[in-house]
This record gives sequence, structure tokens and C-alpha cells, in this order.
Amino acid sequence: MIAAIVLIGDELLSGKVQDVNARYLIERLRALGVDLRRVLILPDDVPTLAEEIPRLAAQVDVVFTSGGVGPTHDDVTMEGIAAGFGAPLFQHPELEALLRARRGDQLREAHLRMARVPEGTTLIPGGVIRWPTTLFRNVYIFPGIPELLRAKFEAIAPRLQGARIYADAIELEADEGAIAPLLEATQDDFNVAIGSYPRFSEGAGLWVRITVESRDEAAVAAAIAHLRDALPSATRSPPEG
Amino acid sequence: MIAAIVLIGDELLSGKVQDVNARYLIERLRALGVDLRRVLILPDDVPTLAEEIPRLAAQVDVVFTSGGVGPTHDDVTMEGIAAGFGAPLFQHPELEALLRARRGDQLREAHLRMARVPEGTTLIPGGVIRWPTTLFRNVYIFPGIPELLRAKFEAIAPRLQGARIYADAIELEADEGAIAPLLEATQDDFNVAIGSYPRFSEGAGLWVRITVESRDEAAVAAAIAHLRDALPSATRSPPEG
Repeated sequence: MIAAIVLIGDELLSGKVQDVNARYLIERLRALGVDLRRVLILPDDVPTLAEEIPRLAAQVDVVFTSGGVGPTHDDVTMEGIAAGFGAPLFQHPELEALLRARRGDQLREAHLRMARVPEGTTLIPGGVIRWPTTLFRNVYIFPGIPELLRAKFEAIAPRLQGARIYADAIELEADEGAIAPLLEATQDDFNVAIGSYPRFSEGAGLWVRITVESRDEAAVAAAIAHLRDALPSATRSPPEG
Repeated sequence: MIAAIVLIGDELLSGKVQDVNARYLIERLRALGVDLRRVLILPDDVPTLAEEIPRLAAQVDVVFTSGGVGPTHDDVTMEGIAAGFGAPLFQHPELEALLRARRGDQLREAHLRMARVPEGTTLIPGGVIRWPTTLFRNVYIFPGIPELLRAKFEAIAPRLQGARIYADAIELEADEGAIAPLLEATQDDFNVAIGSYPRFSEGAGLWVRITVESRDEAAVAAAIAHLRDALPSATRSPPEG
């Protein structure tokens, strides 16, 4: 299962707000064994969302959007998705009933914006959050408020079909260029994904962290053993990711 | 001037490494008055980079990429850009000479990968970093190592044409839905960009932060004054962004 994340909000692009939602989703998708292939941060702009979200939805199995679903003029995620997929917005009676029950005589016209979803939207129980999660085709539409996004993600997590990814890593003092052929050959021979990440440590020279990943646990162990044989100075570092 | 950022690296999508480069570039572009319209995180995959980077370069004035320019098999940014723009990779004599001077008899074949750039690449002095910055069309190609990216960005920053953005903000205890019409009317009447960001404070009810931005300083001041008149409970909060 291949996933993509779209964060929507001018405030992220201007630096007024620092993202925490992508970070959360990245970690959770990894733990669930879902492959994440794209993260996009997009502005609160209907034409941009209309162009980018359907394109992304065609490239991956599942898209998660965050933000732009409140009652104000800068909340345009539903409008963007509706325009992009050519699905008209409609006032969902179940969402409208929830808003009326919650707000009573405090209900304003603007609140009713939150009941407008593209035709064809499925409502999924929102877990600990009373407001349902909206799913349009393969796009889960989450709110930007981190507490709400997390609760809603956890409510749909059992629907995601991942497969555990095994990972291990070694570190050594080395010049990446000198060990590059070994890394590439090991990746090919053991059919694993190898990453090489240089670090500069002041006074300690050049260090490289080499990560090995696969859905085949034995392949990871064999590749690591091979690298350790070839690189006797390598130290094992705690597995991450 | 409209900009986009592309972070390249499987390690960002798997959560093995947390981004700091987008955060840095977002803040600096804002301070320089350059409008950022997109951030993408993409995998170390030539076809993906070849598809996405030229598309993005056509949508904005300037693109900054981060990562994937080292000597190992997972460093494929140059290959992706070359494939995407149909510009063959070639061994740049100036970069090769730098590598030979730096490495001497420690030079390995893999190091020479770092001298391969798409035909038509311009080399720009890298500021405090001896290695030049590579510019291909409107794409600045930066390394992923944060210290190097920062030095190289600062070296090219004087080339960017921004215009100062003025910003101010107020906060109040309110339901976003109740003030939504006021916000939209104020945005239209004063020709400013207004953002509305709800916060949940435990025990303190619903708070909203309202931001007002424009390249016209007087318009920001007038819109803020108008909002404060209409929302007497608003408190001024320190301007951000």
C-alpha cells in the first residue's frame, strides 16, 4: 500500500505555524508498514488543490489531507477536492444534523460550511471524536488541529494494509565515496534498500550511517552481516525507523 | 517572486531523519519577502524526480532542491533533473578539478559522480563553502546536509527578488463560525490576506488567532484596527511571520 500526505495551509508555507501533522503521519505509516511516497504542502487555494489532489490520488493508493476544513473563508479543502474531481459540493444531512445538535441557537451560516462535502463522500466514525471522518474516493480528509487529526487517523488505521518493514543500521568513520561501490553491490545482491547518510562531527572527521531495510527480515540480517565483514570498523547503532 | 522547495530523500519519508531544511528555507524566504507556494518531499527515485521537478519549475519562478547529491547509489537528484529536462549529464571539468585537488590519490570513481551535472548547469560561488552551488535553469540544487544548505542558500539569497510582507495578529476567545463573515468581509474590503487559526486551550475554551498580512503596511494597520473595533475582546498578540 502506497500513501501520500497533503498538508494544506498558507500558515505552513509562511512559517507562521510549524508542521506536526506530517511528522505524526510519517511515523505512524512507517510503524504500520505503509510506504509513503510523497508529502506536499499546498496553499489555501482552490485551483491549486483541484489540480494537485486528484493527480496525487491517481499516483498512490491512499491520500491523507490535513487542514482547511473549518468554517472560515480560508478553509477551502472541500471546495478544492470537489472542483478537482468534478463532484459537486452538497450539504450532507448527517453532518448538518450534528452541527445543529451541537450548536443549537448558536449555529451560524458559516458553521454550515462544515457540512458541505463532495458528492460521493463516505462518513466513517471518528473514533473518540464525535465528528465523523470524511473519505472521498481514496482521500481521507482530516482536520489540521493536531489532536483531532491524530484521533481520526487512529480511527481509520485498522483499514490500512501495511506489511512490516525491518530495518537495521551501522555507523562508521569513512568517506562515503570510498564505500559507495560496496553499498550498491550489497543492495543489489541482498535485495534490500540501503541508505547512506554522511554526518559531520566536529573533531571526529566524516561519519557515515548506513541503513538497511526490507520486508524480509532475514535479508536485512544477511546484508548487515555482509557489510560488517567488509567494514570491520563499523559499529552497530540502535535500529531506527 | 514565487518559490517552491523540494526535499529529496527516502529517509525523510520513512521518518529516519526529520527535516530541518524546509523549516530553514521557509523562514528565510519569508524574511526575504519571497512567496513560497509549494513544498514537496520526494523519494530517491529517478522517474519521480524527472516527472515532478520540471513540472514544478514551470509553475513557479524558482525551485530549491535539497539532498541526493552525494557519491552513493541513492544520490540521484542530478540524474532525475537531467532525465526530466532532457539535458544529458556530463562531467563538469571545473567540478572534477575541484574533486581531484581535494582528494588527491584518495579519489575514487564514486567521487566523480559528484562532478556529473546536467548540461546547461551554471556554477555559482558557494559562499563560505568552496564547492560551488549548482543552478540548472530556475532550479537551485542544494545538498541535504543542513550546514552546507544554509551556507549555499545565503550565498545566493541576494539574487532573490522579494518584497517585504507586513504581518500583524490578534487573538480572542471566540467561535470561528461566529466571526467568519467579519473576517471574509475585512479581507475583501482592506485587500489583505486574513488567516484564522483555532486553538484549543484546556479549561480556557475556544481561542482564535487571526493573522493579517499584506505588502501594504497601511492596509495591515487599517484592517487590524477595523477588527479590533468589531471584536472588543481581542488582545493584540506579538506579530509573527
